[in-house]
Amino acid sequence: MSLAEFSLIERIRTRTRARADVVLGIGDDAALLQPRAGEQLVVTADTLNSGVHFPAETPPYDIGWKTLAVNLSDLASMGARPAWCVLALSLPDADPDWIDAFADGFFALADAHDIVLVGGDTTRGPLSLSVTAMGQVAPGAALRRDGAQVGDDVWVSGTLGDAAVALRAWQGGTLDVRRPAEDAPVDYLRQRLARPTPRVALGAALVGVAHAAVDISDGLLADLGHICERSGVGARVDPERLPVSDAARARVGLTHAREAALRGGDDYELCFTAAAAQQGAVEAIAARLALPLTRIGAIVAGQGVDAGGETTGHRGYEHFTEL
Amino acid sequence: MSLAEFSLIERIRTRTRARADVVLGIGDDAALLQPRAGEQLVVTADTLNSGVHFPAETPPYDIGWKTLAVNLSDLASMGARPAWCVLALSLPDADPDWIDAFADGFFALADAHDIVLVGGDTTRGPLSLSVTAMGQVAPGAALRRDGAQVGDDVWVSGTLGDAAVALRAWQGGTLDVRRPAEDAPVDYLRQRLARPTPRVALGAALVGVAHAAVDISDGLLADLGHICERSGVGARVDPERLPVSDAARARVGLTHAREAALRGGDDYELCFTAAAAQQGAVEAIAARLALPLTRIGAIVAGQGVDAGGETTGHRGYEHFTEL
Repeated sequence: MSLAEFSLIERIRTRTRARADVVLGIGDDAALLQPRAGEQLVVTADTLNSGVHFPAETPPYDIGWKTLAVNLSDLASMGARPAWCVLALSLPDADPDWIDAFADGFFALADAHDIVLVGGDTTRGPLSLSVTAMGQVAPGAALRRDGAQVGDDVWVSGTLGDAAVALRAWQGGTLDVRRPAEDAPVDYLRQRLARPTPRVALGAALVGVAHAAVDISDGLLADLGHICERSGVGARVDPERLPVSDAARARVGLTHAREAALRGGDDYELCFTAAAAQQGAVEAIAARLALPLTRIGAIVAGQGVDAGGETTGHRGYEHFTEL
Repeated sequence: MSLAEFSLIERIRTRTRARADVVLGIGDDAALLQPRAGEQLVVTADTLNSGVHFPAETPPYDIGWKTLAVNLSDLASMGARPAWCVLALSLPDADPDWIDAFADGFFALADAHDIVLVGGDTTRGPLSLSVTAMGQVAPGAALRRDGAQVGDDVWVSGTLGDAAVALRAWQGGTLDVRRPAEDAPVDYLRQRLARPTPRVALGAALVGVAHAAVDISDGLLADLGHICERSGVGARVDPERLPVSDAARARVGLTHAREAALRGGDDYELCFTAAAAQQGAVEAIAARLALPLTRIGAIVAGQGVDAGGETTGHRGYEHFTEL
């Protein structure tokens, strides 16, 4: 290990916060953690590769943020409270400035959600970031993909398609993912792609309210399709109800914005189903969290997602592969 | 996701076994696990990159085995009972034969230790395998690096240096890592490099007996150095007591075999310290497990590892970087 690599690790280690249930953090062969008595452990792992899961030009702050965000999003979709994570970091070289900026983004989000880095490793190689995130949930409380029931409403949080519109604009040279734009709508789209917001508070609030939930990483059609497949039901979505942002609409027009909302991935909003009787409860959550929640359709008998001519089987649109 | 990638995942998913404490395994946004009441969670993560942590020509069975073995070894060094793991698999292409052979190796070892794959993801990219392994241990029982006491004996399991000798022979063209050799000693060395044996039963048996433990992945000098650093002590090692295999000695001679035992990594044996009064208990464990345990030195006041002229500071020899 070169001195550069050693200080690289120290730069990460010194950024980790304490948590009462971390008995032993970074520095031994493994971390020792004290789970909350009786609770269930929620474990997820997601890898981001440069040039595949984010543009290679993405600033390190945003890479650090997004690396953790996509994993927090999976915990959120289960209704779990984040607790601990480990990071496997493959880096082409040990650039302290890069690491500092990466850590700034990673720990800004980690600290906001009280999730603590307890281990991992760094290796030399093409830029790749793999996080395993752990959370906790009361037994039986987790939001799963397999709980949707015929007659449920289908809801989504926030706006959809922003990340896809931003990615296309970046690829087309009309949006710069590397720095904030002075144009507020353009910068909004850039942020949606580069610094997605995991809906952790929403997931926790939906425990006991929603029947099923999934985070939208592959696109609404694909991810709602996962709920349908696992629950043995179908879904009908009204494209006109899809929440699209003013920024996306201004950028590509309503038709393309809706298409992006249906098929675009990487928004990391939640899609969930809840009994019709829960509508008031869902609206109260939306008000409390100041987060739009939009009823976009319903769970029906059958299979697949019918989006008004955009019918898809359960494997409509998937670019990456999650076990 | 192409059909090939889909069936690739199915090939892995269908190989996973059940475990009573896995409430929800692969197939949702996250796994749901029920930890044993009151126990502590032990979490470790290690990444293997092709060409860095194993020769690129290594057969997929051995890659699968070693990917899990290095993580089980970290659990073993803590005295933990393995429970669950996740796998982040980066693959240049989706070759079903490769995946099947990889899974053969991975699950042969997983099933032997009752550790269950509960999630992960696959991405396209240079071959890289990142596992997060979780185990459990009674509160206060874990073997840590920071518990060594002056006067402790220093012990190691098995033989040391075999993997380093095998690696050098492979690099020199006199050992083929790709297939078993008819020459038994050569094949022994090949196996030591390609299919290391995590000392899980030993780690569990050492709970209550050893004061400190570490697995030997970076080399004895470096890893015993970790114990010294974390415990605020030094160590004296007698090179003549180092357990070297007949195969290594036949291959490179006694002097080089001892050098490999001191500095070579990748053996995944355990190094541990125990009070002198525990000698009988340690020998009983060796007999019960039919695994040689060799007393190679002692913990002394001071710092660093003194191996008879081979004095090293606490950072003697490190090739990879573990947080």
